[in-house]
Amino acid sequence: MTIEVDYRFPPGVDAEKQAKVIAVGQTAGTWDARFSHREEVLKSHLAEVVSGITQPDGSSLVTIRFPEANVENDIPSLLTMIFGKYSMAGAAKVMAVRLPEHYGRRPKVGITGIRERLGVRDRPLIMAIFKPALGLSADDHGAILQEVAGAGLDIIKDDEILGDLEVAPTLKRLEACRQVLDQVKQQTGRTVLYAVNVTGAADKLIEKARLLVREGANALLLNVLTYGYSVLDSLAADPEINVPIFAHPALAGALCASPDYGMAYSVVLGTLMAYCGADAVLYPAHYGSLPFDAQEERRIRDSLRSRHVFPVPSAGIHPGIVPKALADYGQDVILNAGTGIMDHPDGPAMGVKAFFEALERVKSGEPFNLEAVPEGALRQALKKWM
Amino acid sequence: MTIEVDYRFPPGVDAEKQAKVIAVGQTAGTWDARFSHREEVLKSHLAEVVSGITQPDGSSLVTIRFPEANVENDIPSLLTMIFGKYSMAGAAKVMAVRLPEHYGRRPKVGITGIRERLGVRDRPLIMAIFKPALGLSADDHGAILQEVAGAGLDIIKDDEILGDLEVAPTLKRLEACRQVLDQVKQQTGRTVLYAVNVTGAADKLIEKARLLVREGANALLLNVLTYGYSVLDSLAADPEINVPIFAHPALAGALCASPDYGMAYSVVLGTLMAYCGADAVLYPAHYGSLPFDAQEERRIRDSLRSRHVFPVPSAGIHPGIVPKALADYGQDVILNAGTGIMDHPDGPAMGVKAFFEALERVKSGEPFNLEAVPEGALRQALKKWM
Repeated sequence: MTIEVDYRFPPGVDAEKQAKVIAVGQTAGTWDARFSHREEVLKSHLAEVVSGITQPDGSSLVTIRFPEANVENDIPSLLTMIFGKYSMAGAAKVMAVRLPEHYGRRPKVGITGIRERLGVRDRPLIMAIFKPALGLSADDHGAILQEVAGAGLDIIKDDEILGDLEVAPTLKRLEACRQVLDQVKQQTGRTVLYAVNVTGAADKLIEKARLLVREGANALLLNVLTYGYSVLDSLAADPEINVPIFAHPALAGALCASPDYGMAYSVVLGTLMAYCGADAVLYPAHYGSLPFDAQEERRIRDSLRSRHVFPVPSAGIHPGIVPKALADYGQDVILNAGTGIMDHPDGPAMGVKAFFEALERVKSGEPFNLEAVPEGALRQALKKWM
Repeated sequence: MTIEVDYRFPPGVDAEKQAKVIAVGQTAGTWDARFSHREEVLKSHLAEVVSGITQPDGSSLVTIRFPEANVENDIPSLLTMIFGKYSMAGAAKVMAVRLPEHYGRRPKVGITGIRERLGVRDRPLIMAIFKPALGLSADDHGAILQEVAGAGLDIIKDDEILGDLEVAPTLKRLEACRQVLDQVKQQTGRTVLYAVNVTGAADKLIEKARLLVREGANALLLNVLTYGYSVLDSLAADPEINVPIFAHPALAGALCASPDYGMAYSVVLGTLMAYCGADAVLYPAHYGSLPFDAQEERRIRDSLRSRHVFPVPSAGIHPGIVPKALADYGQDVILNAGTGIMDHPDGPAMGVKAFFEALERVKSGEPFNLEAVPEGALRQALKKWM
């Protein structure tokens, strides 16, 4: 089996030459007569330039095929091979990575498992983020959760910048929130997931994740790119971590936002996350508050779903985008709103209700323009955000 | 204590507005009257825009000061805060990060420790890389090491793309090479360091590193950016890993090469490595085979040295660059050559000897032009590479 990578070179670059530099320089390299006894094996590790086309804008798209025997069936060794040293060689961007079906890791929980845990099979899931992002106490978190969980929320997560800080230590947040989750379960039978942000040096982070799960955490949040794909890999492989892992895209722009350098968002947040064991992946939605390309968003969605990973379009999500989101995603999507729930004019509970009103309205085919929407949570949201 | 970050915005960006977006959006965020009871604490977590200047090219350089209480005294949480979500917001590049002296981690071994282990106090160290990069057997590695160690080499490392592969499993490479290292020690009293590439999912990687050290590894190589700064942090903190950690820059270009996005090389390979426990850091030299800015190289050198981390200019290093390297670096530098040693016309041992001849020649003030250099290893190298 082989690994195929598409590289884009901007106009003016000798793509044919660069493709050969990659195929040789990122694999066995060159050798002379002293290594003739290893000739066969050395050759078997070389990559191969499969195709190259010049695109209408003058840029080149080159496909290179790498032997799977060069890597360790994981994302870090893959990255080192396909773009390690070469990333420093000049303008080039990794546009797509195609991996063998069996490569890497699959989610332990994934779309089906998250739906089963929540007992929600037939609609998009609604997810909120604790806001303000940091500065609240653990008890504040509990109080906020009480409001939104009571209103029917499916999932809540820490803000990605809230680590294990003195102001609200991770275990204390979990403790405060778990009481609320237990209460909701007892009173309504509903499960609400709380994705706790897990942080720390790699070995400590993994220990902390196990501890959190033992203490009742039913989901985890990981900033995969600032901690490392190898950390996601470890968490996903760990039998004690039997809860869904939500992958956050923090830092992705540093790798992906440049047109001529780095890697495409659909590679970093789509393919690589999907082959590294994430259960759900957050990324910017093109109708959100961050500039994002609709086509890249579709590619991410499709990469994730092809491995049964939940797509979580995020950033600037509010009830007003529900019709668009349903048109783009159908049912298998988690709509993740921060201020779009927490800053609802009538409070976070109404923020949650506005999302469910929006889902119902689209489902029953009712018009979505402000004039047609009756007084209530959704109307208030549309007035604020549309 | 505070953390200061310089962001560069290209011409045309409203830098004042973006600076405020960062200062608020990457910290506490906004809040309303419901959180008036937490007003004081929330405010204490906000960042502050310290200064902003427009540069001659129309770009803006803005300095933002973040509270240290927002992060966990490590690099991953720092990255999430300073550039996590914002990296996806538009064109902006992190140009410098200034951390409190006590922040993060210091090297366990560092410049002094590496010199002590080698017993070499007064000259640059010479380092080689096993080539071809992958496809050799463990025994081939041993045979190559025999040649170069016998010629006086100080340090050798695996190529960064050589992981724990069937063709030459990591432990087998170590076993083959350790026999040579032991022999050299017995026969000459000299220590030669072999930086073994340590790979795998985070928890397995750390276990493997401990195993390698128990089995006699006297140095480790880590692809910090493909595995994660959190993995370096763990290795550096681990009392069992009492050997120097060489940090490889693989993938740095994906983060750093774009002029308008990502982070400066001097941040990623300088500051962040130096505060994360690396003992020596590899990066491209401006007179090497990769395009690299001399000023960025100086910044990396100075960041590393300020924390007693060994700078290791790399990529396209050969004996001909020794005069330049000595002028730029003086004695506290590791000159790291791959093909510049392994592909010497008269073999790798002569490649090593050529470096020592070059060091001697510069030391004694003898001219370095080809006409002046007598027959021998150095002359052959200059003929090939200059």
